[in-house]
Amino acid sequence: MGGFLQFIWPIVSLLSIPLISAVLSNTPVPRTYGIVLFRMFDMLDVYGPSEILQFIGGSYPTNIVYIAETLEPVTTRPVMAAMNPLNSSVYPSLTPTHVFETAPDLDVLIVPGGPGWRNPTSLNATMAYIRETTPKVRQVLTICTGSALAARAGILNGKRATANKFSWPTTVAANPNTTWVPSARWVEDYSSSPPIWSSSGVTAGIDMMLHWVEKTYSAENATNIARFIEHVRITDPSIDPFARNETVAEQA
Amino acid sequence: MGGFLQFIWPIVSLLSIPLISAVLSNTPVPRTYGIVLFRMFDMLDVYGPSEILQFIGGSYPTNIVYIAETLEPVTTRPVMAAMNPLNSSVYPSLTPTHVFETAPDLDVLIVPGGPGWRNPTSLNATMAYIRETTPKVRQVLTICTGSALAARAGILNGKRATANKFSWPTTVAANPNTTWVPSARWVEDYSSSPPIWSSSGVTAGIDMMLHWVEKTYSAENATNIARFIEHVRITDPSIDPFARNETVAEQA
Repeated sequence: MGGFLQFIWPIVSLLSIPLISAVLSNTPVPRTYGIVLFRMFDMLDVYGPSEILQFIGGSYPTNIVYIAETLEPVTTRPVMAAMNPLNSSVYPSLTPTHVFETAPDLDVLIVPGGPGWRNPTSLNATMAYIRETTPKVRQVLTICTGSALAARAGILNGKRATANKFSWPTTVAANPNTTWVPSARWVEDYSSSPPIWSSSGVTAGIDMMLHWVEKTYSAENATNIARFIEHVRITDPSIDPFARNETVAEQA
Repeated sequence: MGGFLQFIWPIVSLLSIPLISAVLSNTPVPRTYGIVLFRMFDMLDVYGPSEILQFIGGSYPTNIVYIAETLEPVTTRPVMAAMNPLNSSVYPSLTPTHVFETAPDLDVLIVPGGPGWRNPTSLNATMAYIRETTPKVRQVLTICTGSALAARAGILNGKRATANKFSWPTTVAANPNTTWVPSARWVEDYSSSPPIWSSSGVTAGIDMMLHWVEKTYSAENATNIARFIEHVRITDPSIDPFARNETVAEQA
């Protein structure tokens, strides 16, 4: 397997460099991240953060657990035929690692979005898990309309948050107890414990997650990961190319 | 379920608008996309294109098939313990829909990257499938080090291509029969049939895929999808923020 190591070593050594600073630091970094899955989740909301944490796992002992109501594969396929009028087969599944009852203690809870957040009938167990887990974690991160689901679960009452700007009207209408920020790549709310960060749509979650890595691990880690995945970062949360400016005007 | 439709309709109607132009067009669009899976694939190389095609599937009858050597879930977990020195659990799996022998005829073959492309011993069936399928499709799209795997399979001999810039030295060294373009967000090679497009690293695949949507379906589709996923596009393939400029100098 010498040839294999020869090819692989550049990546192993990339990931080993930041390990030194982690060992020297006095602040313990998170170890267990939990991502909630529900039918019609947005795949990039889940895999954007997962990819970034996969790199972190090379430098810091890290677990990602995928948590859902049952251990059945969770599909991105719509519930209703009307949402797939051409009967396309474009819907991958992800098999959870845990159900809500058996999930381990988490350091960080991640709530992805996706059209399934709107499901009026099947999210009670999911919302209960989010509500009961939030007080026990160090941080909550919501991606895209994941903040709409988090708001439905009640954990964003009285807090500032943002969400996917395309789905903005339904997100805001369904969740009036949150102060929605219409122009933000992501929002960091520290008004109570745990802090809750929420990102704008889908790939905004990658920017928020790289910022999380920068604040939690190191700027070098964030830079290295962005360089590896060739992601052109937005590093200032106030820069929002997809902002709902008409909504800003309404609220002004 | 009235409430559900009320929430969902904005997305259904987004996806229905381009359907009209598809029906009126004389050029048939692709129907079946196949993505090759192998151990240690890069998850965003697979799910970036998948997410974009999932939107397309709302407007055009579309299938994505995930093809691997067996129907066992394909994991992103490294083969060797040395590549996961902290024993992290950060490696999701994807269950294929088909094996190489039973895969349907494809219109478009997508080859993702990931560190597994380097595996010296276990990719023979994967490379044989890529080699035998390429002449039968209308287009090949490679993402990140997927072009390195495609080159190993022999389909990039004498062609121009690009790849992940961080993994550039090993990609170039392992595949001397390809003209590697060190500064390109993506490369379109039309020198023989089928054309082969190759992207730079990971999120560059999203830019290439949106360009594919623009050329194959419509600019409106690409714009709508980018807006929905809030991806800040690079639309000019010659703009490469991660270019290997020292390699440009070497080759000049």
